[in-house]
Formats: sequence, C-alpha cells, structure tokens
Amino acid sequence: MTAPPPHESDRPQGSDRPHGATRPGGRTARTRAAVLRAAWEELGSQDFAALTIDLIARRSGVHAATIRRRWRTVEGVIIDMLGQHSGTIPIPDTGSLRQDLHTVTRSIADFYASARNRRLVEAVVTSAAREPGAAEVMRAVFKNRIRRVAVLLERAVERGEIPSDTDAEEVIAAIGAPFYYRLLITRRPIDSRLAHISAESAYLGAVEGVFRTGTAPE
Amino acid sequence: MTAPPPHESDRPQGSDRPHGATRPGGRTARTRAAVLRAAWEELGSQDFAALTIDLIARRSGVHAATIRRRWRTVEGVIIDMLGQHSGTIPIPDTGSLRQDLHTVTRSIADFYASARNRRLVEAVVTSAAREPGAAEVMRAVFKNRIRRVAVLLERAVERGEIPSDTDAEEVIAAIGAPFYYRLLITRRPIDSRLAHISAESAYLGAVEGVFRTGTAPE
Repeated sequence: MTAPPPHESDRPQGSDRPHGATRPGGRTARTRAAVLRAAWEELGSQDFAALTIDLIARRSGVHAATIRRRWRTVEGVIIDMLGQHSGTIPIPDTGSLRQDLHTVTRSIADFYASARNRRLVEAVVTSAAREPGAAEVMRAVFKNRIRRVAVLLERAVERGEIPSDTDAEEVIAAIGAPFYYRLLITRRPIDSRLAHISAESAYLGAVEGVFRTGTAPE
Repeated sequence: MTAPPPHESDRPQGSDRPHGATRPGGRTARTRAAVLRAAWEELGSQDFAALTIDLIARRSGVHAATIRRRWRTVEGVIIDMLGQHSGTIPIPDTGSLRQDLHTVTRSIADFYASARNRRLVEAVVTSAAREPGAAEVMRAVFKNRIRRVAVLLERAVERGEIPSDTDAEEVIAAIGAPFYYRLLITRRPIDSRLAHISAESAYLGAVEGVFRTGTAPE
C-alpha cells in the first residue's frame, strides 16, 4: 500500500526534523522514513491497540532498541507520523460556498472510509493523551489544516454569501466535528449522509450569521 | 471532592455489575466503589497519562494486585468508571426547541469547564482505543445518553417546530460533536460561544430539514 505524499503545509513549524534527524537524506533520515512507513503499514492490517515497537522493528528492519531510543514509545512514532500522513483534503473552488463545503465533507468521508485512516486518527488522539508533547504537535497540525481550508470562507465573504466577520476557522471546525464524534465517540461508520448533514448545517449557520465573531452568546 | 451520582439510565445494559461483582453492597461491591472513586479523585489532580494502578491502589487502600486481577489495566478501571460518572445533563423542557438546545449546550459547556471532566473524556476515548471491550461500553453509554436527550426533538415534532421525520439522535450528536472536537482534536478551552454556535447551527439545520431521515445526499 502506498502512503500519501507528505504535506508540508500540514506540518507544524519546526517539527519536520524532530528526534535528532541531523541530515535530510542521510542515514538518520532513512531510518526515520523506514520506521514511519512501517508503522503506517502496520495500521493497514491491525488496530492501534495491537501495534508494538517490536512489530514496527520487524517490518522496518530497524532495531527495536534504536526505535525506543529515538521515539521512546509507539505513541511517539505515531505523532511523528502525523506530520507526514495527515490526509489529503483538496481545497475546492466551485464558486459556491454550499458546493465547496459539500465537496470538503465528501473528501473527509472518503478519507475515513479507509480503516487505516480511522485507526490513524484514533492512534493520534490516544497518543496525544498519553505522550507529553504529542498534544502540542496534534494541535498545530490540525490548526494548520483548518487554516488552509478556511480560504473557502474568505472567498464566500468576497462573493457576499456570508457576513464579513464570519469566523472561518470555526466554520471549518464545525464541518469536521461530526466526523470525529462518530469515529471516536459513537464509533459508527462514516457515511455520505453524515457528510451531507455536516456541510448543510454549517452552511446554513454561516449564511445566518451564527459564526460571526461579533455575535455574543445569548 | 464529590463524585456526581451514578445515572442508571446512562449505563449500558448488563454492565452495571462487571468484573465479578457478585453481591451488591458486599465486599466485592465495596472494593469496586473504592477503586472507582480513587481513580475519579486522581483525575481531579492530574492528567490521565500520569494515572497508574499504583496510584489508584494507594488512594483506594485496595491492593494493586487485586486491581490488576479484576480490571487488568488503568483503561479497564476508566471504562468501568464511565458507567458511573458519565455526566449530569438535565433534560430541559422550555417549550421551545431553540431554547432547549441552548440549555443543553450550556450544560455541556459547564460540564467540561471542569478539568477533571475533560480528563475523564480523554481517558475514556483513549481507553476505548486500547482496551478490548471498552469501545463497546463507551458506544453503549453514549448511545443511551443521546437517546435520553433526543426526547427534546420528539417534543419539537409534536409542537410542529421541525419535520416529523427528523433524525433526533443525529441532531443530538450534532450539538455534542463540536465539544469533543475541541476537547480532543484542536484541544482548546470550551467557551460559551461554542455552546451558542453548536445549538444554533443544529437548530437551523433541524428547522430546515437537514436531519430528515428521508433526505438523500445530493
């Protein structure tokens, strides 16, 4: 199975060379690539709960002791991997906010149709809860991703579809939230109906001014 | 610190006496109560990542070996605890769906203003990812909770506020989702503005028929 290409824009600043990777392309970088690829491949065939350093070592050909020294735990590997495999969410530009939002939620639904991608997000959230520093990396990755997609709202403001003081990042968070709720909390399959509900509710809210930054809670 | 009262209705069927609790009120039940209370109290002062069987043993007065034998891991304790401490969400009946939804989201925001409650949900999600069987318990607990709150939508249907084929559970999932996204993914504080956005978006969607079961995705 092929790993998706890394997304520079999804990486938090300063985290692209963690864990003592001294020379890009050198032995350290090759070791890191092998370990991250092995962990990614393991998630293709089994749950995060079953993932161990020994399995990653066997698949990558890197000694378990080396992995433990550099990443300490499975959670450390997972979080390092997040910078490389945080999903390919294309940014549509259909000329209509409603269509743009539906396109994005369909992309999210497609992404999480893959069991491996579902396991990755579960592994990442779990790692963030257990590994010091991991939460910060996750926050930065998602913040960057939300910012990228938020350009949809800026275009909608320019077209006069939504109020100019719409909190673009909060709209993008709103369309993503139902997917993570279903993945992590109610733990049911993602379907196209969820994508429809998510896009449509956020669209109506945006048009009606629910996400305006000036709006005070009642 | 006082633990909230257990909610029978939030418990998945058949899980109220797990782990060999043979007699309610007997020694086994007292041991279980002491262990769950100790874990709950520990979460009041530190992160889930720092929680260990030894800490729970010290605080509860129950031998660590006994805890390991019965619950196996910290995750096992957390999931058993979930049945008892799954939050107090009152079911409002203001006569208006909009007000009812705002009342519920304010309750959720209040609940997660507590660091311990934030840690509990993080611990539960993490445990569900790592402990076999835990995911099933969590799914059942949230399903029951969503069903309880879904009565708001049935009343709104009776009042003619929303279409009769509204998927009530999906509306309740929609008002909860933004909180868990913020807690687990973007990891920022919950505020009253999020409660406002969450209630208002779901309300507009419900009124406009976004959650109708007959609605096919575009």
